[in-house]
Amino acid sequence: MTGSDRSLPERCRPFGQSFESSVMPSPRISPLVANLTAPPIPEVQAWKQDYPGHLGPLIDLSQAVPGYPPHPDMLRWLGEAASSVAMAGYGDIEGEPELRSAYAGWISDLYEAEIRPAHIHVTSGCNQAFMAAMMTVAGPGDRVMLTRPCYFNHETTLSMSGVTVDYVDCEAENGFLPRPADVQAMISDGVRALAVVTPNNPTGATYPAGLLQELFDLCRTHEIWLFVDETYRDFLPFDSGPPHGLFAQPDWQDTLVGLYSFSKSFCIPGHRVGAVTAGPEMVAQIAKVMDNLQICAPRPPQQALTRAIPELGTWRRHNTVEITARSAALTKAMLGAPGWEIEALGAYFAFVRHPFDDLSAYEVARRLAQETGVITIPGSFFGAGLERYLRVAFANADVATIGGLGARFSACSG
Amino acid sequence: MTGSDRSLPERCRPFGQSFESSVMPSPRISPLVANLTAPPIPEVQAWKQDYPGHLGPLIDLSQAVPGYPPHPDMLRWLGEAASSVAMAGYGDIEGEPELRSAYAGWISDLYEAEIRPAHIHVTSGCNQAFMAAMMTVAGPGDRVMLTRPCYFNHETTLSMSGVTVDYVDCEAENGFLPRPADVQAMISDGVRALAVVTPNNPTGATYPAGLLQELFDLCRTHEIWLFVDETYRDFLPFDSGPPHGLFAQPDWQDTLVGLYSFSKSFCIPGHRVGAVTAGPEMVAQIAKVMDNLQICAPRPPQQALTRAIPELGTWRRHNTVEITARSAALTKAMLGAPGWEIEALGAYFAFVRHPFDDLSAYEVARRLAQETGVITIPGSFFGAGLERYLRVAFANADVATIGGLGARFSACSG
Repeated sequence: MTGSDRSLPERCRPFGQSFESSVMPSPRISPLVANLTAPPIPEVQAWKQDYPGHLGPLIDLSQAVPGYPPHPDMLRWLGEAASSVAMAGYGDIEGEPELRSAYAGWISDLYEAEIRPAHIHVTSGCNQAFMAAMMTVAGPGDRVMLTRPCYFNHETTLSMSGVTVDYVDCEAENGFLPRPADVQAMISDGVRALAVVTPNNPTGATYPAGLLQELFDLCRTHEIWLFVDETYRDFLPFDSGPPHGLFAQPDWQDTLVGLYSFSKSFCIPGHRVGAVTAGPEMVAQIAKVMDNLQICAPRPPQQALTRAIPELGTWRRHNTVEITARSAALTKAMLGAPGWEIEALGAYFAFVRHPFDDLSAYEVARRLAQETGVITIPGSFFGAGLERYLRVAFANADVATIGGLGARFSACSG
Repeated sequence: MTGSDRSLPERCRPFGQSFESSVMPSPRISPLVANLTAPPIPEVQAWKQDYPGHLGPLIDLSQAVPGYPPHPDMLRWLGEAASSVAMAGYGDIEGEPELRSAYAGWISDLYEAEIRPAHIHVTSGCNQAFMAAMMTVAGPGDRVMLTRPCYFNHETTLSMSGVTVDYVDCEAENGFLPRPADVQAMISDGVRALAVVTPNNPTGATYPAGLLQELFDLCRTHEIWLFVDETYRDFLPFDSGPPHGLFAQPDWQDTLVGLYSFSKSFCIPGHRVGAVTAGPEMVAQIAKVMDNLQICAPRPPQQALTRAIPELGTWRRHNTVEITARSAALTKAMLGAPGWEIEALGAYFAFVRHPFDDLSAYEVARRLAQETGVITIPGSFFGAGLERYLRVAFANADVATIGGLGARFSACSG
């Protein structure tokens, strides 16, 4: 049920070659970094060049990238902010006051809770939100629990910081959700936090509000932090109420740290903006880390987002409808790929089981890319024991493109 | 001559109050972060509100911020890039290929060396360049040598990463330059790097090429990395030849890591762009750290900088002339402040000795701010034993404003 302790990432790629495989680590590179595997996205994208194109254009379902452009107003606001003298100067470490206020207001409505600007720390993307907040609570020698499959950058961020990762395995039979009893069994001295991602990356599984409440209660009882990364939150069906009730708990800030990315919902990953939601004390501590990490997040997109949050709600809801349609299209398309099974699906990702008993996930993903032009990420990149799976970022492609995936998957050799 | 070992920053502020002094750290905050002092810039800027204004407008000489706007073309390019669909997507972890190429070409000319795009890793500012490159070579339990006075964020970045800082004291009698013999005496097992800043922050001292060569040779002999942060490089007199010959050394990449910020030279700190110059192997290792830290630096300013590097050379040289004039104006102005002495001066900063035997640097900086409206940073923020100094970021203010500093400093009570 539960994973073994490993201070190094367990990603393995026995059949493949790293994009930097010709580079030998120097003995003067920190072993915590030298032992990290290379960033996964560039590695799988390098396969693109080997696809001959006979089945049609490449379909890149690796990195989560919205398959539509930002709203024209967003682009205009970004341009206005970036060309202003005022935004060229340094800003507050914690973020632009106007964005902290706009975001706090937005999520107060979303979670039916009272979240104030002082609860928000703007960051340069959600990976940085995770790293800055994690460094604040866990140092070298400490332990942090991740659910497995896990988002690879959470694993490598902790490993390179000298933090030991404990894995809570989430089984396919349980919809890739963690069982609270398994979490409880993993809690040991030195564990500082549990981090979960919902809707999940890589599986797409959405954690029910009741499960999140159980995890919160467990963490509160054991005085460990609960990190909830909701990067893909805005792609949940929008009439289903608050994603969870944790921010409405009394004293939530003694247990909960929320993480968010503006990249996906506003289609601006190249601008790098994310946010932490936490207690004011935690925000003050995170500011110390952020000051060293990069002084402050880039300012112009913060100003543009301040305008976009109230203005682009309709557009965002339209995108959620569109991505729900893509999800349905994938379900239908995969019926045309015998032996392939969608084992979990939600928000942005599908976790797909491949039909080949004798092939590693890495080998299947490589063949799928090179033979059929579909770029996905091997399950093994998300943890040991996931050789039967591929992560499919289906939201990247439109419905028509997704319609052709059945034939592509079927063309992959076993 | 040399400093003691401390794993925690030694900044002290016995008379002052931190901006977060009412916040008690939780036992569940990592001690490496809880023990860090609050970011210094917000702390000294909080003094602004107490200045009654009777001596004229506030003069903020705390954070290094060019006292003139970006070039109008730069603002236009920033706006164009930020409003483009292409720049809204994810970019390469190592940076935009075009910027890596433009920057490599620029500094190849500057250093009379052959620096290739593969030697460049773009980052989100120079603090991030330091952190990403330092994490790559030094982990928890390792040691890194800093010259003291040291740039406070270098100290806190290492401390929060669990790296022990060894201080090489630079004395006023030696122009605040390190003596190679002192460096040699500090090298011990576990030391992974020496980091220097030239032109120096906080003192302004510019390291002669010969001294840098000695430090390089020493580091090469002992197989430790030499980090050279040249954030203020472009404000050196521009006809004085290469700042040093290190990038022209054979196998420089086995010893040298160069750090740079686009913030000061192009007046765009709010956009957050910096760069590391290192060997391709080091760049590949840094990319692993950067992927976790924030995937990639923000893209639109990278595209704008690609245009600005070749186009704005004349404008940059004009600014250097202007800042040299400000430096001369400060020298003249301080003649009107009896008892105050400029002990070092260069590029962007002056390190000024105050006349009060019985006051801490913190107390003098606070009085100067609250009584005369001049915001500086106490010497004690740059290391123990620096109670007689203030850092003055003179380049922030124009010549006329600087002309009034003598009267302001004289008005500070002892």
